Amino acid sequence: MNIAVDAMGGDHAPGVIVQGALWAQPELGVDITLVGDQDLIRRELSRGGGIGNGIQIHHCSQMVAMDESPMKVLRKKKDASIMVAFDLAKRGKAEAVVSAGNSGATIGAAVLTVGRIKGVERPALAVIFPGAKGNVVLIDVGANVDTKPRQLFEFGIMGDIFTHSLLNIDNPRVGILNIGQEGGKGNEQVRIAHDLFKKGPFNFIGNVEGRDIFSGDVQVIVSDGFVGNVAVKLTEGMAETMGIMFEREMSKGLISRFGFWLIRRAFEKFKSNIDYAECGGALLLGVKGVGVICHGISSPKAIKNAIRTARDFVIKGVQDRLEEGLAKFQSKAFNETDAM
Amino acid sequence: MNIAVDAMGGDHAPGVIVQGALWAQPELGVDITLVGDQDLIRRELSRGGGIGNGIQIHHCSQMVAMDESPMKVLRKKKDASIMVAFDLAKRGKAEAVVSAGNSGATIGAAVLTVGRIKGVERPALAVIFPGAKGNVVLIDVGANVDTKPRQLFEFGIMGDIFTHSLLNIDNPRVGILNIGQEGGKGNEQVRIAHDLFKKGPFNFIGNVEGRDIFSGDVQVIVSDGFVGNVAVKLTEGMAETMGIMFEREMSKGLISRFGFWLIRRAFEKFKSNIDYAECGGALLLGVKGVGVICHGISSPKAIKNAIRTARDFVIKGVQDRLEEGLAKFQSKAFNETDAM
Repeated sequence: MNIAVDAMGGDHAPGVIVQGALWAQPELGVDITLVGDQDLIRRELSRGGGIGNGIQIHHCSQMVAMDESPMKVLRKKKDASIMVAFDLAKRGKAEAVVSAGNSGATIGAAVLTVGRIKGVERPALAVIFPGAKGNVVLIDVGANVDTKPRQLFEFGIMGDIFTHSLLNIDNPRVGILNIGQEGGKGNEQVRIAHDLFKKGPFNFIGNVEGRDIFSGDVQVIVSDGFVGNVAVKLTEGMAETMGIMFEREMSKGLISRFGFWLIRRAFEKFKSNIDYAECGGALLLGVKGVGVICHGISSPKAIKNAIRTARDFVIKGVQDRLEEGLAKFQSKAFNETDAM
Repeated sequence: MNIAVDAMGGDHAPGVIVQGALWAQPELGVDITLVGDQDLIRRELSRGGGIGNGIQIHHCSQMVAMDESPMKVLRKKKDASIMVAFDLAKRGKAEAVVSAGNSGATIGAAVLTVGRIKGVERPALAVIFPGAKGNVVLIDVGANVDTKPRQLFEFGIMGDIFTHSLLNIDNPRVGILNIGQEGGKGNEQVRIAHDLFKKGPFNFIGNVEGRDIFSGDVQVIVSDGFVGNVAVKLTEGMAETMGIMFEREMSKGLISRFGFWLIRRAFEKFKSNIDYAECGGALLLGVKGVGVICHGISSPKAIKNAIRTARDFVIKGVQDRLEEGLAKFQSKAFNETDAM
């Protein structure tokens, strides 16, 4: 298996990206193609211990900056690293793409290059949250805003298949993120979606609320990308702030400092349990290829984890399950209402 | 000062409500009027140590259940406890209202009874989050969905005045909750709002993201009520889940158990620092009266804290500042664009 990694994408590219690839390759047993400026990549490779078996460079001359407007740029920059990475996937030279670059550009490059799965209006981003009772998948976390009810319904189908086939959860419980549990609650978008979801080919349990993202009583939570993006960034900010406040409180007296020293290992374990970066990034669902989108500020460890997630996605055949599931849904001509 | 407390509102009313009032009255030095069924309230009062000076009962015959549809019910139930509580405020018999009941009904009762402040299209709910660098106010957390840009703008004005006059923060930094910092980001609602906010009578710093709710780099965050409601419930769920996971991890070995025992006081302190229930509830802004809306599941301590927040709101004259500020804004005839 070969995974194409966008070496030029991310706030600290190509340094941390190359480092993550160097850690991932021996540990995960996959080949990695680093896509980007070969001189820069070579320099980082030699810094990190030199190029070994299983790591190749695929040179390209352009890149998309983090603050560039994706759609304007992509049509001009055909040789941008993220375009080239997805082109490798399209030509069967790579099984998956991993990027910590401009996420709008990554989604755009996927759509322009490998294209959407037939019938999918909008690809979506899914993340896996750790919960007290197990993992919870939130979809969409920012690929779309102003999502239509029909598109939310597609997210439900994709989220269900993804959760079942990647996380091995049978018949996952699917909910719509809303501000109350009753059917009539929320904005127009989710009120219409609620009626559609009742007819869905999945285990729809109704509306869920913000607190359920961590409860574990629901395994797939469907949301407009605006709301999902706020939610995912909020949890990051909260985890970080709580960590700072916790350590500050623990350093206030001799006894608690000693106590904190005693629990430091368990505390590190706890932190890695709640770190959603453990799966490395968000999964791009609905395109004809496998894409993992990491944070711009990803560490080498997060890049390594993203490569692992991409590998598992491929090994478990999640992409085939998605395409089959969506085809089945299309063939049923689920177009009963204009509201969709 | 007299504060009207809806004794019938909340999942565990009137028990915890009466208990909270009994704690609040001597500690905070305010008079409290418990509104509701006098027999039930009397029973709880005698259980809690008996009625003392400073606590009165105002009997009424009806109540709104947690799951009743507010607008249908309020016009019929003129003698519902929440209607009667706001009526006391309207007639000058109480300076503020506190309720842990059906929040839609509380907002509806306020609008029907004391009415909106002149020119305010939509009252909004504000909560105060603790952050690593100080408090952050999020407005709206669920009074409205499908909010128009002009209404978001009003939330900005109210949030600014509230933060300045209740929390003593001079010239607070005001941001719009969005999925990226650049002006063109987000859904239509926030893109238009971004242009309006630039002309606002406050210190607008642009878009902020989910993680900024805890960063403390912005003090007022304006949001549609749908997104704000998801955010506030998410933080509650996450704090709870992290607490469970933390304690689980800490109990796994003798050393960490001992360490955890040593830090237990600092840990309790930390938990109360991050507990947004410390301010007791959400503030209803934009109506001609002071209202604090608590969680249905509020503890007596949360009720007491809500009564304190209501008291501070009155002492600091926040209501007058809001009415003055909104009047000034109206007189400027800020109606330059249809988009509002």
